[in-house]
Amino acid sequence: MAPVAAPTHEDIVAHGESLKQKPNVPAKAAPTEDEILVLNTIRCLAADLCQQYKGGHPGTVMGAASIGVALWRYLMRYNPSNPDWFPRDRFVLSAGHACLLQYMMLHFSGYKAWTLDEIKNYHAPTMSGIAAGHPEIEFPGVEVTTGPLGQGIANAVGLAMAGKQLGAMYNKPDFPVVDGKVWCFTGDGCLQEGVGQEAISMAGHFGLDNLILIYDNNAITVDGRIDNCFTDDTSAKLKATGWEVIEVYDGSNDLSGIVKALEQAKQVKGKPVMVNIRTIIGIYSSKAGSGPVHGAALGDDDVAYVKSQLGFNPHEKFVVPPKVYDYFEECKPRGERYEAEWNEMMARYAKAYPKENAELQRRLAGKLREGWESSIPSKDQLPQSAIPTRKASGIMVQALVAEDPTFVAGSADLIESTFVGWKGMTEFQKPESGLGDYSGRQIRYGIREFAMVAVGNGFAAYQRGMFIPIMSTFFMFWLYAAPAVRMSALQKLRFIGVATHDAIGIGEDGPTHQPIALASFYRALPDFNLIRPADAEEVVGAYLVALEAENTPSLFALSRQAVPLLSGTDRTKVAKGGYVVLGDENATPDITLLATGAEVARAVQVAEKLQEKLKATVRVVSMPSLKHFDAQPASYRRSVIPSNKSLVVAIEAYASFGWAKYAHGGCHMHSFGHSAPQDTLYEHFGFGIDNMTQKIGDWAESRRSSSGGWDLPGVGEYEELLLGTVGH
Amino acid sequence: MAPVAAPTHEDIVAHGESLKQKPNVPAKAAPTEDEILVLNTIRCLAADLCQQYKGGHPGTVMGAASIGVALWRYLMRYNPSNPDWFPRDRFVLSAGHACLLQYMMLHFSGYKAWTLDEIKNYHAPTMSGIAAGHPEIEFPGVEVTTGPLGQGIANAVGLAMAGKQLGAMYNKPDFPVVDGKVWCFTGDGCLQEGVGQEAISMAGHFGLDNLILIYDNNAITVDGRIDNCFTDDTSAKLKATGWEVIEVYDGSNDLSGIVKALEQAKQVKGKPVMVNIRTIIGIYSSKAGSGPVHGAALGDDDVAYVKSQLGFNPHEKFVVPPKVYDYFEECKPRGERYEAEWNEMMARYAKAYPKENAELQRRLAGKLREGWESSIPSKDQLPQSAIPTRKASGIMVQALVAEDPTFVAGSADLIESTFVGWKGMTEFQKPESGLGDYSGRQIRYGIREFAMVAVGNGFAAYQRGMFIPIMSTFFMFWLYAAPAVRMSALQKLRFIGVATHDAIGIGEDGPTHQPIALASFYRALPDFNLIRPADAEEVVGAYLVALEAENTPSLFALSRQAVPLLSGTDRTKVAKGGYVVLGDENATPDITLLATGAEVARAVQVAEKLQEKLKATVRVVSMPSLKHFDAQPASYRRSVIPSNKSLVVAIEAYASFGWAKYAHGGCHMHSFGHSAPQDTLYEHFGFGIDNMTQKIGDWAESRRSSSGGWDLPGVGEYEELLLGTVGH
Repeated sequence: MAPVAAPTHEDIVAHGESLKQKPNVPAKAAPTEDEILVLNTIRCLAADLCQQYKGGHPGTVMGAASIGVALWRYLMRYNPSNPDWFPRDRFVLSAGHACLLQYMMLHFSGYKAWTLDEIKNYHAPTMSGIAAGHPEIEFPGVEVTTGPLGQGIANAVGLAMAGKQLGAMYNKPDFPVVDGKVWCFTGDGCLQEGVGQEAISMAGHFGLDNLILIYDNNAITVDGRIDNCFTDDTSAKLKATGWEVIEVYDGSNDLSGIVKALEQAKQVKGKPVMVNIRTIIGIYSSKAGSGPVHGAALGDDDVAYVKSQLGFNPHEKFVVPPKVYDYFEECKPRGERYEAEWNEMMARYAKAYPKENAELQRRLAGKLREGWESSIPSKDQLPQSAIPTRKASGIMVQALVAEDPTFVAGSADLIESTFVGWKGMTEFQKPESGLGDYSGRQIRYGIREFAMVAVGNGFAAYQRGMFIPIMSTFFMFWLYAAPAVRMSALQKLRFIGVATHDAIGIGEDGPTHQPIALASFYRALPDFNLIRPADAEEVVGAYLVALEAENTPSLFALSRQAVPLLSGTDRTKVAKGGYVVLGDENATPDITLLATGAEVARAVQVAEKLQEKLKATVRVVSMPSLKHFDAQPASYRRSVIPSNKSLVVAIEAYASFGWAKYAHGGCHMHSFGHSAPQDTLYEHFGFGIDNMTQKIGDWAESRRSSSGGWDLPGVGEYEELLLGTVGH
Repeated sequence: MAPVAAPTHEDIVAHGESLKQKPNVPAKAAPTEDEILVLNTIRCLAADLCQQYKGGHPGTVMGAASIGVALWRYLMRYNPSNPDWFPRDRFVLSAGHACLLQYMMLHFSGYKAWTLDEIKNYHAPTMSGIAAGHPEIEFPGVEVTTGPLGQGIANAVGLAMAGKQLGAMYNKPDFPVVDGKVWCFTGDGCLQEGVGQEAISMAGHFGLDNLILIYDNNAITVDGRIDNCFTDDTSAKLKATGWEVIEVYDGSNDLSGIVKALEQAKQVKGKPVMVNIRTIIGIYSSKAGSGPVHGAALGDDDVAYVKSQLGFNPHEKFVVPPKVYDYFEECKPRGERYEAEWNEMMARYAKAYPKENAELQRRLAGKLREGWESSIPSKDQLPQSAIPTRKASGIMVQALVAEDPTFVAGSADLIESTFVGWKGMTEFQKPESGLGDYSGRQIRYGIREFAMVAVGNGFAAYQRGMFIPIMSTFFMFWLYAAPAVRMSALQKLRFIGVATHDAIGIGEDGPTHQPIALASFYRALPDFNLIRPADAEEVVGAYLVALEAENTPSLFALSRQAVPLLSGTDRTKVAKGGYVVLGDENATPDITLLATGAEVARAVQVAEKLQEKLKATVRVVSMPSLKHFDAQPASYRRSVIPSNKSLVVAIEAYASFGWAKYAHGGCHMHSFGHSAPQDTLYEHFGFGIDNMTQKIGDWAESRRSSSGGWDLPGVGEYEELLLGTVGH
């Protein structure tokens, strides 16, 4: 198999983007025969693997093979024998569809799990493989699950921030405990996505010199030439955002040039670095440099064409010449050496810095500070007057965060409104800024909600349990962050989300800021906790749930307005999802009111009035988490909500979607809200105490059965008590 | 009231951002006494209006008063006597919290609705005012509702694209029918948001020289100095994105400098323009140039201080000296003159270009092309073999879009997968690109889903009914776009959303691409249609619903995989939300299966097997739109889903959230999915025909009552038939 000539510079400048740059391309070292064989093996494998089940993304793998080889063979510090070796460099494939490149590199560099047979399961009709269509965090050598474009860049920024912070906390002279790099591979798509831009801006601001963004600049997306829709000068943009930029012009073949550029990137201080590498997507395919090679199998003829061009036998599949394995042979012993050296250093570190080491070990084990529970105020110690639940959340932030470096807390520009600051906090900032340093755990995410949560995922993924990011913005803007929140849940990465100013309680800011429908998404999301606490006591309970749930992110929907501390609330019962806060738990009530958040206090008032008006027993159930309630045994659920005997009414100033599962009717929002003070809004939309008492009372009267009990509505008869009345 | 001196250049460079630029500030013309009085009146009013109800955003209004005056007094072309005058310049306040500035300008320039009394209702406890906390589209002089940051920039890009397109279609030599500018006012926040960056990149690519972005660069956000979290060189970034940039350094006072810069911006050809104007937020307040002046009332003392500084009586409120009205006196007659001139031109245009004029008038009236209905294929004319519903959607795009310029159709880089192209289409591109021209209606949005929909809102808002944007991406990535979709619904702006590859049917791309929970959000969203059609016939019905619903956006969740054309589907019944597709409509069935989308065909198969297995009658109901079903009379709902007599089972490969309203139990997803071919996934997660038949059959047997009928589960007893079994 004689290696064929690499494409010429003319091939490369055929791409619009490169043309525009008119680069003065430096002379390059020709790849060795072995290197060419390695690159071509990867290309042929990519063609075969996609052709096998007629699907997948071959083009980027073929075009960017050199980048993969440069990283795993030369640049990255990792141990294939221990994928989770803590101080490793971390690699994020933001262009997740190019996963075959990563899988092959993991195979060649010696990760045991990544056999060639496993990789051949790519797109196979099996549920058991690890070669998923996009890289998934649970498999060895994958740091974060990627695929939804742009987010990988933000995850990498989070990983880099986590690394910087650990370094600032634990590194000592001659003890570089944490000094790994974060390498992020991005395509054109991630750079078009807003979240990618937010993250790039954030990384530039924080001066993250442990972050290297490798731009696989092939100027092709699914729909063809990138200049159909995107003509940014990305290098200039990143320079304007505080990044160092290094250019590589023949990225499909100039392996030594890439290695040199990446080595150079490692040396940059004080800034993140983008290495802008021009490649030819699907190189050596007849469709090289075009859209169709991006996301579809090449077809049998083209696979044969690729192989014949590269000196491979068109009739043989999945061929890996032994020389290829030889080429990567060193990766495994090298990794083991790295780990042994680090272990040796850490043994000395443990003696020299026992306190730091103990803390580090505690965090590596995913444990919170010893005795953290004692810093949590008891119900008696909470403010006994009415306070907003967002403020109660602030009490918990103070209690938990100040003393435990596990927590990093920050806001998308609403730190004071969301109470995520604490006494004596230091900001995470580059030291030169004079605003803080990298040991700081108060993070100013800027007005970048989506990147905030995707960055938080990077923190959480750095090492499970080592960081708990607390992130905040108004509940409404958790919709901006929703695609990252979904990725948190999908990856079982814990965060604590502080979502304040919920429902119509935000008041004057109006319907643009009043989340009515958003809870439905978060309640439907698997492996996710949406908790809407009724008062300060339930806020404490919400935190306890979140801290218990090691593999589940939690979001707290909190009130702007003050709510009373209710006598019936109980932090320990938040984990049940719903429980009785008013009324006899052991006697079936005539009427059961379900409510959440700020509406629970209203339900209590309504219950007292209804009791009198109807001469009936009325129970109030607080339902902070529908998901947790659903997880209880049927007997518990039935005991709390006896919907087969009691008339059940839900009260929540969100859309009613989802409540028919629990109640026979309800008081809900049926529009987007309005701009007015919150009291005015609650009255206008029908949530006034008198109005609800009237509406529920009248409806109850209409459902009295002749036999004395209720004519209970069945499935399909949910009654919207506020629809068509005031406000709607 | 003697005007006081403007702040010096030193005041301005006190801001970090300006400091860095070290500008060589050109000599400026001092404002006249009248101008100073006008600016100071606005500042005092802003202070008074926020102080009145102790809330709101005074700082930007005070700092950027000159920008408002420049625009309404000098630059913009509009008619206060007819706010909806079609060819007006359009103004978008992307920094929506600064709405008081816009309200005051609308008042001073003579908009009848905007009395001072109305403006005094800002934050008042009333439901009837128009001075909302953020500008709302339904009020005169407001083009789009803004507030959620960043989206206003994208809306402005959409308005500018709409204007460019109309100009390319209808302008003729000497007949500049549509040549208005779009002015967008942005603060620092919008520029941090990813959607703002996406939109800026898009505008640069398209070379929108009718768009002028005014950056109120006050370097302060809620949390204080912007350089706490954002240190981009925004001017350099925009230049790298194809924008022209003009700098203004004393934006709080150099009115003539602003006017000159904006005049200059109007003359730029081939590029959008950013005018980067440094201002001092809350100028003349004791808290000028700091965070607290951004989003809170100044306090009585500071209001008095502002007034005393500016020569106003601290004891008088809401003072507008007559000279201020004099200053704006010309705005109204000028606007009427503009309109008269245009009307005169249009009378001549109607004669010279009757065809173009007729089309324009038809579109101005919000009507579709005459006879459009006849281009819709009948059920017989649809492909009779199984096709994906996304492909059926493509048939509708072909039928509707090719001949009617009302439609603009495009994709976030998935045009071929989502079938939004048509024969003979022209791309919307700047003519110099050689790729298309501005008359093109195929829009390449790039991989920018959020901006796509926010831009679509700009199209839809240009003139109600004149444009119907059709926008597409995979359903999963409609989560990226969700904050813009919410704004579409809130503003009642119609679009048609093509959301393909829904549920687990996307297959090999895996859980990152499989939307399980997203439908819950869109179903809960007020004033929004989420439609999941069962087959090609229902796809036609979905389009008919969307075209009927002039004030409601619609999103179609469509399958990647082929589904058969079902004999029972009926386009006219999609508008009912749910209807019987299998079984006798007039006899109560023993079992009723509810299903949506690709699962309807499965439900039909299950029904046939169940019928045999249980010797029972089984009905299948297709439920393309829960919202439409809920809007039907109870009698209809009961007749279709007789849940008081029939055992009702929902089948949908999404999360079960929301289904308990209609069914007694169901087959749903309880996890995020998996990477494997779709057939494998349907089987694995329990949606195989045999498995569902078994599960439903067994459950039905368990619910047989001794009296012969069913022991129907009541509220609170929803049975998850696939939970805890295969796959979950």
